[in-house]
Parts: sequence; structure tokens; C-alpha cells
Amino acid sequence: MTTTDRLTTAVIEADPEVPIIRITRDFRATPAQVLRAHTDPELFVRWNGPDSLTARVDYWDARTGGSWRFVHSDENGEYAFHGCFHEVGEDRIVQTFTWEGMPEHVSLETLRLEDLGDGWTRLHAQSLVDSFEGRNGWLESGMEVGVNEGYAKLDGLLGEGSVQA
Amino acid sequence: MTTTDRLTTAVIEADPEVPIIRITRDFRATPAQVLRAHTDPELFVRWNGPDSLTARVDYWDARTGGSWRFVHSDENGEYAFHGCFHEVGEDRIVQTFTWEGMPEHVSLETLRLEDLGDGWTRLHAQSLVDSFEGRNGWLESGMEVGVNEGYAKLDGLLGEGSVQA
Repeated sequence: MTTTDRLTTAVIEADPEVPIIRITRDFRATPAQVLRAHTDPELFVRWNGPDSLTARVDYWDARTGGSWRFVHSDENGEYAFHGCFHEVGEDRIVQTFTWEGMPEHVSLETLRLEDLGDGWTRLHAQSLVDSFEGRNGWLESGMEVGVNEGYAKLDGLLGEGSVQA
Repeated sequence: MTTTDRLTTAVIEADPEVPIIRITRDFRATPAQVLRAHTDPELFVRWNGPDSLTARVDYWDARTGGSWRFVHSDENGEYAFHGCFHEVGEDRIVQTFTWEGMPEHVSLETLRLEDLGDGWTRLHAQSLVDSFEGRNGWLESGMEVGVNEGYAKLDGLLGEGSVQA
């Protein structure tokens, strides 16, 4: 595999059988670095979400059984999200996720990190919801902008050496 | 609706479209009492699971963002389960659930309590997993025995006045 085979734009897929969104994206980093970018709140707010929003953490306890809440904001207002961490492992995070604008909708998020060797790591993210309508609503919301702008910021943090393993 | 219309045996259904198990069961109690039977660990261990197992709590923090772990045991050994509480509301609990024998499998559980009036409450429980194979495995595991024996014990606790609202 050459560098040109790396997925440096997120692949976002709708599962045909179950109401799941899958995201696959490669990073020039170790699995531990990519994991840390998802568990360290000071790092997380520097990359998560689209460029048009700033993120801040309300509370954050990234361990099995912990919980989290963060807020995205722009000049028009705030968008808050919260959930709990079911599992924070060495190469896997399982957590719940709710946008507080629609609190009845809860998704179960699984992040898995695969070591590709040569200093690259493949991120596999899965979001499971309880209906196809809800899943398709997320896909039609323009989520790919936030996903790709966010991961590009994470590329930048990794490249400048800001993410220790 | 007469008392004979009450669902005093659990209705366990497999959703045809998504990998969900739904359980519906009526209790002669208020929604607050049924909720308390699910949040108070001392009550929970008195009714949860089949008659052949005894339950004990390892840790239990039934609030939004909390987490839990309990252990069923018999003369053959122990069966441990854990998860986190995404939301503990007045008539809804959303939590994750894992049997530690298969820790890669995580379900998202939603409990909703509907006041039927006349002192009866309908419990709606939904278990969402990420594959039909996993969902059908649960259905074929004999889960209806534990569900119905457990709810019969909860009927007993409610009937003897052990569950305050």
C-alpha cells in the first residue's frame, strides 16, 4: 500500500441492512495518538466539528463509565451534545451521543483504531440509531462538512506534534 | 380496558426492520414506582433475572452520566453485566448494556413508562444492537424465562408494598 492509498478524505457509508453510519479515515499517527485526540478534552475541542464553530467542553470524564458534554457555538447560538462512555479501551471507544436539540434521539457510537503500520492508523467509526429515518436525517444534515473539516484539523494537530501518544 | 386486558406476561417482539427487541409489560403500580424498581440497586437485585440466579450490585450510580455493574450467580459461576446511564429521567431511562462474556457486543437500552391510569403502568423496553445475528442470538438464548420470572418477582415486591414512589 502506498501513501496514495490512504483515506485522507473520510469515507462515509450508510449500511444497507441496519440503521448505521460508518466512517473510515486514515491518519499519519499511532492508534494511541488518535485515541488520545478523542479522550483528551483540550485536544478534542481543537479539532472536533466544522471550521465555522468553536467547541468547548462542559464536562468530560473519558473512562469506562464516565460521561461527557460539549458545546459548539457560533454567532447564532449554541449546539450542545452529551453522552456517556460505555468503554474507553486502548483501541476502542464505545459511547452514547445525543444532540440536545433532539434529546429523544440517542445514538450508540463505536470507534475502533486499526494500526496500518508505517506510522498510519485507520479510524473506523460506527453510529447506530434506532430508525432508518433518523439515520438518513443525519446523512442529509451536511455532516460530511463537519467530519472532514474536523479531521483536517486533527491532521494539523498531529503534523505539528501536538498529540502525544 | 379491563384488568384482563393488562399484559401481565411480557410481550417480547423482534422488530422486522431494525435489530431491536421490544418488551411490553404492565404493572399494578405508578410509573414512579416502576422507575424506582429500575434505579434503586437494593430493589433491582431483588427482582432482576431468572429465579435460578441471585443478583448483586458491584457499582451503581443511576443518574444521567452514571454507570452500573451487576453480577448474577449460581452454583456454576458468575455472569457479569455493565453499562452506563445515558439518561435517567422521570419516565425514561436510556443506558448501555454488555454481558461481559461477549464484551464486544453492546446494546442501547431504552425504558419508557406509560401511565395507563387506574394504578397501572405499561413498561416499554427497547434493546437496539448492531446486527440481526446478535439480536436473534438474544431471542434464542431463552431470555423470556429471565424476563418473565424477573417481572413476576417485581409484581411481588409491588404487591407487598416494598416499592415506594
